[in-house]
Amino acid sequence: MGFHDTLNRSWRRRDSMLCVGLDPDIDRMPEPLRGHLDATFEFCRAIVDATAPTACAFKPQIAFFASQGAEDALERLCAYINESYPDHVLLLDAKRGDVGSTAEHYAREAFVRYGADAVTVNPYLGTDSVEPFLRHEGKGVVLLCRTSNPGSDDFQSLMVDGAPLYTHVARRVADRWSALGECGLVVGATYPAELAVVRGIVGDLPILVPGVGAQGGEVEATVSAGKDAAGLGMMISSSRAILYASSGEDFADAAHRVAEATRDQIRGAAVC
Amino acid sequence: MGFHDTLNRSWRRRDSMLCVGLDPDIDRMPEPLRGHLDATFEFCRAIVDATAPTACAFKPQIAFFASQGAEDALERLCAYINESYPDHVLLLDAKRGDVGSTAEHYAREAFVRYGADAVTVNPYLGTDSVEPFLRHEGKGVVLLCRTSNPGSDDFQSLMVDGAPLYTHVARRVADRWSALGECGLVVGATYPAELAVVRGIVGDLPILVPGVGAQGGEVEATVSAGKDAAGLGMMISSSRAILYASSGEDFADAAHRVAEATRDQIRGAAVC
Repeated sequence: MGFHDTLNRSWRRRDSMLCVGLDPDIDRMPEPLRGHLDATFEFCRAIVDATAPTACAFKPQIAFFASQGAEDALERLCAYINESYPDHVLLLDAKRGDVGSTAEHYAREAFVRYGADAVTVNPYLGTDSVEPFLRHEGKGVVLLCRTSNPGSDDFQSLMVDGAPLYTHVARRVADRWSALGECGLVVGATYPAELAVVRGIVGDLPILVPGVGAQGGEVEATVSAGKDAAGLGMMISSSRAILYASSGEDFADAAHRVAEATRDQIRGAAVC
Repeated sequence: MGFHDTLNRSWRRRDSMLCVGLDPDIDRMPEPLRGHLDATFEFCRAIVDATAPTACAFKPQIAFFASQGAEDALERLCAYINESYPDHVLLLDAKRGDVGSTAEHYAREAFVRYGADAVTVNPYLGTDSVEPFLRHEGKGVVLLCRTSNPGSDDFQSLMVDGAPLYTHVARRVADRWSALGECGLVVGATYPAELAVVRGIVGDLPILVPGVGAQGGEVEATVSAGKDAAGLGMMISSSRAILYASSGEDFADAAHRVAEATRDQIRGAAVC
Protein backbone atom coordinates (compact mmCIF):
# COMPACT_ATOMS: atom_id res chain seq x y z
CA MET A 1 0.00 0.00 0.00
CA GLY A 2 1.35 3.42 -0.95
CA PHE A 3 1.59 6.69 0.99
CA HIS A 4 -1.82 8.02 -0.04
CA ASP A 5 -3.66 4.79 0.76
CA THR A 6 -1.88 4.34 4.10
CA LEU A 7 -2.73 7.90 5.07
CA ASN A 8 -6.34 7.58 3.99
CA ARG A 9 -6.78 4.43 6.01
CA SER A 10 -5.01 5.97 8.99
CA TRP A 11 -7.27 9.04 8.97
CA ARG A 12 -10.38 6.88 8.94
CA ARG A 13 -9.32 4.15 11.36
CA ARG A 14 -8.60 6.57 14.18
CA ASP A 15 -10.75 9.45 12.96
CA SER A 16 -7.72 11.67 13.44
CA MET A 17 -5.72 14.16 11.41
CA LEU A 18 -3.21 14.69 14.19
CA CYS A 19 0.44 14.20 13.26
CA VAL A 20 2.81 13.87 16.21
CA GLY A 21 6.13 15.60 15.55
CA LEU A 22 9.16 13.91 17.13
CA ASP A 23 11.75 16.63 17.84
CA PRO A 24 13.76 15.17 20.73
CA ASP A 25 15.72 18.01 22.30
CA ILE A 26 18.34 16.59 24.63
CA ASP A 27 18.10 19.71 26.81
CA ARG A 28 14.39 19.18 27.39
CA MET A 29 14.29 15.49 28.27
CA PRO A 30 11.84 14.73 31.08
CA GLU A 31 13.35 14.17 34.51
CA PRO A 32 13.20 10.34 34.57
CA LEU A 33 15.20 10.10 31.31
CA ARG A 34 17.88 12.69 32.02
CA GLY A 35 21.32 11.14 31.89
CA HIS A 36 19.88 7.95 30.38
CA LEU A 37 22.30 6.61 27.78
CA ASP A 38 19.58 5.99 25.20
CA ALA A 39 17.33 8.89 26.26
CA THR A 40 16.53 10.07 22.73
CA PHE A 41 15.18 6.71 21.63
CA GLU A 42 13.45 5.89 24.92
CA PHE A 43 11.77 9.30 25.02
CA CYS A 44 10.49 9.09 21.45
CA ARG A 45 9.30 5.51 21.88
CA ALA A 46 7.36 6.46 25.00
CA ILE A 47 5.76 9.40 23.17
CA VAL A 48 4.89 7.17 20.20
CA ASP A 49 3.27 4.54 22.44
CA ALA A 50 1.37 7.21 24.39
CA THR A 51 0.04 9.08 21.37
CA ALA A 52 -0.48 6.32 18.78
CA PRO A 53 -4.22 5.91 19.49
CA THR A 54 -4.78 9.62 18.78
CA ALA A 55 -2.61 10.13 15.70
CA CYS A 56 -2.64 9.40 11.97
CA ALA A 57 1.08 9.98 11.51
CA PHE A 58 4.46 10.34 13.21
CA LYS A 59 6.93 12.89 11.96
CA PRO A 60 10.49 12.55 13.25
CA GLN A 61 12.53 15.70 12.59
CA ILE A 62 15.94 14.45 11.49
CA ALA A 63 17.84 17.61 12.53
CA PHE A 64 17.28 16.83 16.21
CA PHE A 65 18.92 13.44 15.74
CA ALA A 66 21.69 14.66 13.43
CA SER A 67 22.87 17.42 15.78
CA GLN A 68 23.64 14.84 18.45
CA GLY A 69 24.92 12.08 16.18
CA ALA A 70 21.90 9.92 16.97
CA GLU A 71 21.13 8.43 13.55
CA ASP A 72 21.19 5.02 15.15
CA ALA A 73 18.40 6.07 17.54
CA LEU A 74 16.40 7.38 14.57
CA GLU A 75 16.88 4.10 12.70
CA ARG A 76 15.63 2.12 15.68
CA LEU A 77 12.75 4.54 16.25
CA CYS A 78 11.60 4.29 12.63
CA ALA A 79 11.88 0.49 12.74
CA TYR A 80 9.86 0.48 15.96
CA ILE A 81 7.11 2.66 14.46
CA ASN A 82 6.92 0.55 11.30
CA GLU A 83 6.77 -2.67 13.28
CA SER A 84 4.45 -1.62 16.10
CA TYR A 85 2.23 0.85 14.24
CA PRO A 86 2.23 -0.18 10.58
CA ASP A 87 -1.10 1.61 10.08
CA HIS A 88 0.40 4.98 10.91
CA VAL A 89 2.18 7.09 8.33
CA LEU A 90 5.89 7.55 9.03
CA LEU A 91 6.85 10.93 7.60
CA LEU A 92 10.52 11.87 7.80
CA ASP A 93 10.86 15.63 8.16
CA ALA A 94 14.16 16.29 6.41
CA LYS A 95 13.41 19.06 3.88
CA ARG A 96 15.99 17.64 1.50
CA GLY A 97 16.61 19.14 -1.91
CA ASP A 98 19.41 18.43 -4.34
CA VAL A 99 20.04 17.45 -7.93
CA GLY A 100 20.08 14.12 -9.76
CA SER A 101 22.27 11.46 -8.20
CA THR A 102 22.52 13.31 -4.89
CA ALA A 103 18.73 13.45 -4.63
CA GLU A 104 18.65 9.70 -5.19
CA HIS A 105 20.99 9.25 -2.22
CA TYR A 106 18.68 11.38 -0.08
CA ALA A 107 15.73 9.29 -1.27
CA ARG A 108 17.55 6.13 -0.19
CA GLU A 109 18.29 7.74 3.18
CA ALA A 110 14.59 8.44 3.78
CA PHE A 111 12.91 5.46 2.18
CA VAL A 112 15.42 2.63 2.47
CA ARG A 113 17.54 3.43 5.50
CA TYR A 114 14.77 4.90 7.66
CA GLY A 115 11.85 3.12 5.97
CA ALA A 116 9.75 6.30 5.85
CA ASP A 117 6.45 6.33 3.97
CA ALA A 118 7.10 9.93 2.94
CA VAL A 119 9.69 12.68 3.25
CA THR A 120 9.53 16.47 3.17
CA VAL A 121 11.39 18.03 0.21
CA ASN A 122 12.26 21.61 -0.73
CA PRO A 123 11.01 22.50 -4.24
CA TYR A 124 13.49 25.31 -5.05
CA LEU A 125 15.66 23.11 -7.31
CA GLY A 126 12.78 22.01 -9.52
CA THR A 127 11.52 18.89 -11.26
CA ASP A 128 14.70 16.87 -11.65
CA SER A 129 15.46 17.31 -7.93
CA VAL A 130 12.10 15.76 -7.04
CA GLU A 131 11.94 12.96 -9.61
CA PRO A 132 14.45 10.66 -7.85
CA PHE A 133 12.18 10.66 -4.78
CA LEU A 134 9.04 10.11 -6.82
CA ARG A 135 10.57 7.14 -8.60
CA HIS A 136 10.40 5.19 -5.32
CA GLU A 137 7.02 3.63 -5.96
CA GLY A 138 4.43 4.02 -3.23
CA LYS A 139 6.57 6.50 -1.34
CA GLY A 140 5.40 10.06 -0.70
CA VAL A 141 7.06 13.41 -1.38
CA VAL A 142 5.71 16.27 0.69
CA LEU A 143 6.82 19.56 -0.80
CA LEU A 144 7.38 22.81 1.05
CA CYS A 145 4.87 25.28 -0.31
CA ARG A 146 4.03 28.00 2.24
CA THR A 147 5.88 27.61 5.52
CA SER A 148 4.71 28.84 8.92
CA ASN A 149 7.67 31.08 9.84
CA PRO A 150 7.84 34.89 9.52
CA GLY A 151 10.69 34.71 6.96
CA SER A 152 8.55 32.71 4.57
CA ASP A 153 7.40 36.05 3.13
CA ASP A 154 10.89 36.80 1.80
CA PHE A 155 10.42 34.65 -1.29
CA GLN A 156 7.28 32.51 -1.00
CA SER A 157 4.92 35.46 -1.28
CA LEU A 158 6.73 37.30 -4.08
CA MET A 159 4.31 37.91 -6.93
CA VAL A 160 4.83 36.01 -10.18
CA ASP A 161 2.32 36.66 -12.96
CA GLY A 162 -0.10 38.16 -10.46
CA ALA A 163 0.03 35.29 -7.96
CA PRO A 164 2.40 34.57 -5.08
CA LEU A 165 5.27 32.16 -5.69
CA TYR A 166 3.89 29.53 -3.32
CA THR A 167 0.79 29.14 -5.50
CA HIS A 168 3.07 28.40 -8.45
CA VAL A 169 4.69 25.69 -6.34
CA ALA A 170 1.24 24.30 -5.47
CA ARG A 171 0.25 24.30 -9.13
CA ARG A 172 3.45 22.57 -10.22
CA VAL A 173 2.91 19.85 -7.60
CA ALA A 174 -0.75 19.36 -8.52
CA ASP A 175 -0.40 19.55 -12.31
CA ARG A 176 2.99 17.93 -12.97
CA TRP A 177 4.71 16.25 -10.06
CA SER A 178 1.60 14.38 -8.95
CA ALA A 179 1.61 12.64 -12.29
CA LEU A 180 5.05 11.24 -11.47
CA GLY A 181 4.32 9.87 -8.00
CA GLU A 182 2.53 10.41 -4.69
CA CYS A 183 2.79 14.01 -3.55
CA GLY A 184 1.72 16.18 -0.65
CA LEU A 185 2.42 19.77 0.40
CA VAL A 186 3.48 21.71 3.48
CA VAL A 187 1.43 24.79 4.37
CA GLY A 188 1.82 26.47 7.74
CA ALA A 189 -1.12 26.83 10.13
CA THR A 190 -0.25 30.49 10.63
CA TYR A 191 -1.84 31.40 7.28
CA PRO A 192 -5.38 29.89 7.09
CA ALA A 193 -6.41 32.07 4.14
CA GLU A 194 -3.45 30.85 2.14
CA LEU A 195 -4.10 27.28 3.22
CA ALA A 196 -7.55 27.65 1.64
CA VAL A 197 -5.99 28.97 -1.57
CA VAL A 198 -3.62 26.00 -1.73
CA ARG A 199 -6.45 23.55 -1.02
CA GLY A 200 -8.30 25.11 -3.96
CA ILE A 201 -5.35 24.46 -6.25
CA VAL A 202 -4.34 20.95 -5.19
CA GLY A 203 -7.70 19.16 -4.91
CA ASP A 204 -7.46 16.30 -2.46
CA LEU A 205 -3.67 16.05 -2.17
CA PRO A 206 -2.68 15.68 1.48
CA ILE A 207 -1.36 18.78 3.22
CA LEU A 208 1.04 18.71 6.16
CA VAL A 209 0.19 21.61 8.43
CA PRO A 210 2.82 22.45 11.05
CA GLY A 211 2.48 25.38 13.40
CA VAL A 212 -0.41 24.19 15.57
CA GLY A 213 0.38 24.29 19.29
CA ALA A 214 3.70 25.88 20.23
CA GLN A 215 3.77 27.96 17.04
CA GLY A 216 0.32 29.42 17.80
CA GLY A 217 -1.80 28.45 14.80
CA GLU A 218 -5.49 28.12 15.57
CA VAL A 219 -6.92 24.68 15.04
CA GLU A 220 -10.44 25.69 13.98
CA ALA A 221 -9.31 28.16 11.34
CA THR A 222 -6.78 25.64 10.06
CA VAL A 223 -9.20 22.76 9.71
CA SER A 224 -11.89 24.88 8.15
CA ALA A 225 -9.44 26.28 5.58
CA GLY A 226 -7.58 23.10 4.80
CA LYS A 227 -10.00 20.17 4.85
CA ASP A 228 -10.77 18.38 1.64
CA ALA A 229 -14.20 17.40 0.28
CA ALA A 230 -14.33 14.41 2.65
CA GLY A 231 -13.51 16.57 5.70
CA LEU A 232 -10.03 15.05 5.79
CA GLY A 233 -6.89 15.84 3.80
CA MET A 234 -4.44 17.07 6.40
CA MET A 235 -1.70 15.94 8.72
CA ILE A 236 -1.92 18.62 11.38
CA SER A 237 1.33 18.52 13.20
CA SER A 238 2.10 19.36 16.78
CA SER A 239 5.50 18.69 18.31
CA ARG A 240 6.66 20.63 21.36
CA ALA A 241 3.21 21.11 22.95
CA ILE A 242 2.86 17.30 23.08
CA LEU A 243 6.48 16.25 23.66
CA TYR A 244 7.10 18.62 26.54
CA ALA A 245 3.63 18.67 28.11
CA SER A 246 5.29 17.59 31.35
CA SER A 247 8.92 17.25 32.38
CA GLY A 248 8.09 14.85 35.23
CA GLU A 249 7.39 11.15 35.66
CA ASP A 250 4.01 11.67 33.96
CA PHE A 251 5.45 12.98 30.68
CA ALA A 252 3.94 10.20 28.58
CA ASP A 253 0.49 10.54 30.17
CA ALA A 254 0.66 14.30 29.76
CA ALA A 255 1.65 13.87 26.10
CA HIS A 256 -1.31 11.55 25.62
CA ARG A 257 -3.71 14.06 27.16
CA VAL A 258 -2.49 16.96 25.01
CA ALA A 259 -2.50 14.78 21.88
CA GLU A 260 -6.04 13.60 22.63
CA ALA A 261 -7.25 17.14 23.27
CA THR A 262 -5.66 18.37 20.05
CA ARG A 263 -7.17 15.48 18.09
CA ASP A 264 -10.58 16.27 19.59
CA GLN A 265 -10.26 19.93 18.68
CA ILE A 266 -9.38 18.95 15.10
CA ARG A 267 -12.25 16.45 15.02
CA GLY A 268 -14.71 19.04 16.30
CA ALA A 269 -13.62 21.55 13.72
CA ALA A 270 -13.76 19.02 10.88
CA VAL A 271 -17.45 18.30 11.33
CA CYS A 272 -18.43 21.98 11.40
CA MET B 1 39.87 33.12 11.41
CA GLY B 2 36.44 33.09 9.77
CA PHE B 3 35.17 31.52 6.55
CA HIS B 4 35.93 34.49 4.30
CA ASP B 5 39.48 34.95 5.62
CA THR B 6 40.26 31.24 5.43
CA LEU B 7 39.00 31.10 1.86
CA ASN B 8 40.91 34.21 0.85
CA ARG B 9 44.11 32.84 2.25
CA SER B 10 43.48 29.45 0.67
CA TRP B 11 42.93 30.96 -2.78
CA ARG B 12 46.20 32.89 -2.57
CA ARG B 13 48.43 30.28 -0.95
CA ARG B 14 47.81 27.69 -3.63
CA ASP B 15 46.73 30.08 -6.40
CA SER B 16 43.70 27.85 -6.88
CA MET B 17 39.94 28.22 -7.02
CA LEU B 18 39.40 24.48 -7.39
CA CYS B 19 37.02 22.90 -4.88
CA VAL B 20 37.18 19.11 -4.72
CA GLY B 21 33.74 17.58 -4.22
CA LEU B 22 33.70 14.39 -2.12
CA ASP B 23 30.73 12.28 -3.28
CA PRO B 24 31.79 8.74 -2.39
CA ASP B 25 29.56 6.35 -4.30
CA ILE B 26 29.97 2.84 -2.91
CA ASP B 27 29.17 1.39 -6.35
CA ARG B 28 32.05 3.27 -7.95
CA MET B 29 34.85 2.55 -5.49
CA PRO B 30 38.19 1.91 -7.22
CA GLU B 31 39.25 -1.71 -7.48
CA PRO B 32 41.78 -1.78 -4.57
CA LEU B 33 39.15 -0.51 -2.10
CA ARG B 34 36.21 -2.68 -3.14
CA GLY B 35 35.02 -4.78 -0.24
CA HIS B 36 37.20 -2.80 2.16
CA LEU B 37 35.30 -2.33 5.44
CA ASP B 38 36.14 1.37 5.69
CA ALA B 39 36.21 2.03 1.93
CA THR B 40 34.25 5.30 2.08
CA PHE B 41 36.67 6.93 4.50
CA GLU B 42 39.81 5.45 2.95
CA PHE B 43 38.75 6.51 -0.54
CA CYS B 44 37.96 10.08 0.50
CA ARG B 45 41.15 10.41 2.53
CA ALA B 46 43.24 9.23 -0.41
CA ILE B 47 41.50 11.74 -2.70
CA VAL B 48 42.02 14.54 -0.16
CA ASP B 49 45.73 13.75 0.17
CA ALA B 50 46.16 13.50 -3.59
CA THR B 51 44.35 16.74 -4.43
CA ALA B 52 45.15 19.01 -1.47
CA PRO B 53 48.07 20.79 -3.22
CA THR B 54 45.76 21.79 -6.08
CA ALA B 55 42.62 22.84 -4.18
CA CYS B 56 41.31 25.73 -2.09
CA ALA B 57 38.44 23.75 -0.57
CA PHE B 58 36.96 20.32 0.04
CA LYS B 59 33.23 19.79 -0.27
CA PRO B 60 31.88 16.53 1.18
CA GLN B 61 28.32 15.84 -0.02
CA ILE B 62 26.49 14.52 3.02
CA ALA B 63 23.83 12.59 1.05
CA PHE B 64 26.42 10.06 -0.13
CA PHE B 65 27.33 9.31 3.48
CA ALA B 66 23.75 9.39 4.80
CA SER B 67 22.41 6.90 2.24
CA GLN B 68 24.85 4.27 3.52
CA GLY B 69 24.72 5.18 7.21
CA ALA B 70 28.30 6.40 7.12
CA GLU B 71 28.07 9.51 9.33
CA ASP B 72 30.95 8.12 11.34
CA ALA B 73 33.14 8.05 8.21
CA LEU B 74 32.13 11.64 7.46
CA GLU B 75 33.00 12.73 11.00
CA ARG B 76 36.44 11.14 10.73
CA LEU B 77 36.97 12.58 7.25
CA CYS B 78 36.10 16.12 8.39
CA ALA B 79 38.36 15.77 11.42
CA TYR B 80 41.14 14.53 9.15
CA ILE B 81 40.75 17.48 6.76
CA ASN B 82 40.70 20.00 9.61
CA GLU B 83 43.74 18.48 11.21
CA SER B 84 45.85 17.77 8.14
CA TYR B 85 44.76 20.68 5.95
CA PRO B 86 43.66 23.50 8.25
CA ASP B 87 44.34 26.05 5.49
CA HIS B 88 41.70 24.52 3.23
CA VAL B 89 38.05 25.46 3.50
CA LEU B 90 35.83 22.58 4.61
CA LEU B 91 32.44 23.18 3.03
CA LEU B 92 29.68 20.73 3.96
CA ASP B 93 27.28 20.34 1.06
CA ALA B 94 23.99 19.62 2.84
CA LYS B 95 21.50 22.14 1.38
CA ARG B 96 19.69 22.33 4.69
CA GLY B 97 16.74 24.63 5.23
CA ASP B 98 14.31 24.73 8.12
CA VAL B 99 12.84 27.12 10.67
CA GLY B 100 14.06 28.41 14.03
CA SER B 101 15.11 25.74 16.49
CA THR B 102 15.37 23.08 13.79
CA ALA B 103 17.73 25.26 11.78
CA GLU B 104 19.87 25.66 14.89
CA HIS B 105 20.12 21.86 15.12
CA TYR B 106 21.22 21.69 11.48
CA ALA B 107 23.78 24.43 12.20
CA ARG B 108 25.17 22.36 15.06
CA GLU B 109 25.30 19.33 12.78
CA ALA B 110 27.42 21.21 10.23
CA PHE B 111 29.59 23.43 12.41
CA VAL B 112 29.94 21.54 15.69
CA ARG B 113 29.57 17.88 14.81
CA TYR B 114 31.39 17.98 11.47
CA GLY B 115 33.49 21.08 12.15
CA ALA B 116 32.73 22.58 8.74
CA ASP B 117 33.84 26.13 7.91
CA ALA B 118 30.68 26.61 5.85
CA VAL B 119 27.51 24.82 4.82
CA THR B 120 25.19 25.07 1.83
CA VAL B 121 21.65 26.23 2.72
CA ASN B 122 18.41 26.50 0.74
CA PRO B 123 16.96 30.05 0.89
CA TYR B 124 13.27 29.19 0.24
CA LEU B 125 12.24 29.52 3.91
CA GLY B 126 13.65 33.02 4.30
CA THR B 127 15.56 35.09 6.84
CA ASP B 128 14.71 33.33 10.09
CA SER B 129 15.71 29.99 8.58
CA VAL B 130 19.18 31.36 7.81
CA GLU B 131 19.83 33.39 10.98
CA PRO B 132 20.57 30.39 13.23
CA PHE B 133 23.41 29.41 10.88
CA LEU B 134 24.72 32.97 10.65
CA ARG B 135 24.82 33.32 14.42
CA HIS B 136 27.70 30.83 14.51
CA GLU B 137 30.46 33.42 14.36
CA GLY B 138 33.08 32.93 11.72
CA LYS B 139 31.11 30.17 10.02
CA GLY B 140 29.90 30.52 6.43
CA VAL B 141 26.44 30.07 4.91
CA VAL B 142 26.47 29.38 1.19
CA LEU B 143 22.98 29.94 -0.22
CA LEU B 144 21.51 28.22 -3.24
CA CYS B 145 20.85 30.92 -5.81
CA ARG B 146 20.87 29.54 -9.36
CA THR B 147 21.54 25.82 -9.53
CA SER B 148 23.11 23.94 -12.43
CA ASN B 149 20.32 21.44 -13.13
CA PRO B 150 17.66 21.66 -15.88
CA GLY B 151 14.80 21.86 -13.33
CA SER B 152 16.22 25.03 -11.81
CA ASP B 153 14.16 26.94 -14.37
CA ASP B 154 10.91 25.79 -12.73
CA PHE B 155 11.07 28.43 -10.01
CA GLN B 156 14.48 30.12 -9.98
CA SER B 157 13.95 31.88 -13.28
CA LEU B 158 10.35 32.98 -12.70
CA MET B 159 10.07 36.74 -13.18
CA VAL B 160 9.41 38.89 -10.11
CA ASP B 161 9.23 42.65 -10.66
CA GLY B 162 10.96 42.27 -14.00
CA ALA B 163 13.86 40.17 -12.74
CA PRO B 164 14.24 36.42 -12.24
CA LEU B 165 13.72 35.03 -8.74
CA TYR B 166 17.35 33.98 -8.32
CA THR B 167 18.44 37.63 -8.62
CA HIS B 168 16.11 38.47 -5.72
CA VAL B 169 17.82 35.74 -3.73
CA ALA B 170 21.22 37.20 -4.65
CA ARG B 171 20.08 40.67 -3.62
CA ARG B 172 18.71 39.45 -0.29
CA VAL B 173 21.98 37.69 0.47
CA ALA B 174 24.10 40.70 -0.50
CA ASP B 175 21.94 43.42 1.07
CA ARG B 176 20.58 41.77 4.21
CA TRP B 177 21.97 38.37 5.14
CA SER B 178 25.60 39.41 4.66
CA ALA B 179 25.07 41.98 7.40
CA LEU B 180 24.23 39.12 9.79
CA GLY B 181 27.21 36.84 9.08
CA GLU B 182 29.53 35.42 6.43
CA CYS B 183 27.65 34.45 3.29
CA GLY B 184 28.33 32.95 -0.10
CA LEU B 185 26.14 31.78 -2.98
CA VAL B 186 25.75 28.77 -5.26
CA VAL B 187 25.50 29.45 -8.99
CA GLY B 188 25.83 26.62 -11.50
CA ALA B 189 28.53 26.64 -14.14
CA THR B 190 25.95 25.80 -16.78
CA TYR B 191 24.75 29.42 -16.87
CA PRO B 192 27.79 31.76 -17.31
CA ALA B 193 25.64 34.75 -18.27
CA GLU B 194 23.62 34.40 -15.10
CA LEU B 195 26.78 33.88 -13.08
CA ALA B 196 27.92 37.29 -14.36
CA VAL B 197 24.58 38.83 -13.33
CA VAL B 198 24.92 37.39 -9.82
CA ARG B 199 28.54 38.57 -9.55
CA GLY B 200 27.31 42.06 -10.45
CA ILE B 201 24.80 41.94 -7.59
CA VAL B 202 26.89 40.39 -4.83
CA GLY B 203 30.20 42.26 -5.14
CA ASP B 204 33.04 40.14 -3.81
CA LEU B 205 31.00 37.51 -1.94
CA PRO B 206 32.37 34.04 -2.68
CA ILE B 207 30.44 31.94 -5.17
CA LEU B 208 30.42 28.15 -5.18
CA VAL B 209 30.20 26.99 -8.78
CA PRO B 210 29.31 23.33 -9.25
CA GLY B 211 28.82 21.81 -12.65
CA VAL B 212 32.35 21.91 -14.00
CA GLY B 213 33.61 18.54 -15.24
CA ALA B 214 31.03 15.76 -15.29
CA GLN B 215 28.16 18.23 -15.59
CA GLY B 216 29.73 19.86 -18.64
CA GLY B 217 30.20 23.50 -17.68
CA GLU B 218 33.04 25.24 -19.51
CA VAL B 219 35.82 26.44 -17.27
CA GLU B 220 36.83 29.50 -19.31
CA ALA B 221 33.33 30.92 -19.58
CA THR B 222 32.73 30.25 -15.89
CA VAL B 223 35.86 31.97 -14.67
CA SER B 224 35.44 34.93 -16.96
CA ALA B 225 31.82 35.41 -15.82
CA GLY B 226 32.30 34.77 -12.13
CA LYS B 227 35.67 36.16 -11.04
CA ASP B 228 35.73 39.12 -8.68
CA ALA B 229 37.80 42.30 -8.99
CA ALA B 230 40.89 40.46 -7.71
CA GLY B 231 40.49 37.64 -10.27
CA LEU B 232 39.35 35.31 -7.48
CA GLY B 233 35.97 34.91 -5.74
CA MET B 234 34.93 31.36 -6.62
CA MET B 235 35.07 27.81 -5.37
CA ILE B 236 34.80 25.98 -8.69
CA SER B 237 33.74 22.49 -7.80
CA SER B 238 34.44 19.25 -9.56
CA SER B 239 33.49 15.90 -8.05
CA ARG B 240 33.04 12.88 -10.27
CA ALA B 241 35.61 13.83 -12.91
CA ILE B 242 38.28 13.84 -10.19
CA LEU B 243 36.99 11.07 -7.89
CA TYR B 244 36.49 8.53 -10.61
CA ALA B 245 39.34 9.49 -12.94
CA SER B 246 40.56 5.90 -12.65
CA SER B 247 39.02 2.81 -11.09
CA GLY B 248 42.37 1.06 -10.79
CA GLU B 249 45.36 1.06 -8.44
CA ASP B 250 46.32 4.51 -9.73
CA PHE B 251 43.03 6.19 -8.74
CA ALA B 252 44.70 8.72 -6.41
CA ASP B 253 47.36 9.66 -8.96
CA ALA B 254 44.71 9.97 -11.64
CA ALA B 255 42.63 12.18 -9.34
CA HIS B 256 45.67 14.36 -8.74
CA ARG B 257 46.30 14.72 -12.46
CA VAL B 258 42.71 15.69 -13.25
CA ALA B 259 42.58 18.09 -10.29
CA GLU B 260 45.84 19.69 -11.35
CA ALA B 261 44.70 20.06 -14.95
CA THR B 262 41.40 21.59 -13.82
CA ARG B 263 43.20 23.99 -11.49
CA ASP B 264 45.52 24.99 -14.36
CA GLN B 265 42.59 25.59 -16.67
CA ILE B 266 40.95 27.79 -14.01
CA ARG B 267 44.22 29.60 -13.41
CA GLY B 268 44.75 30.23 -17.10
CA ALA B 269 41.26 31.61 -17.48
CA ALA B 270 41.58 33.85 -14.41
CA VAL B 271 44.54 35.79 -15.80
CA CYS B 272 42.88 36.46 -19.15
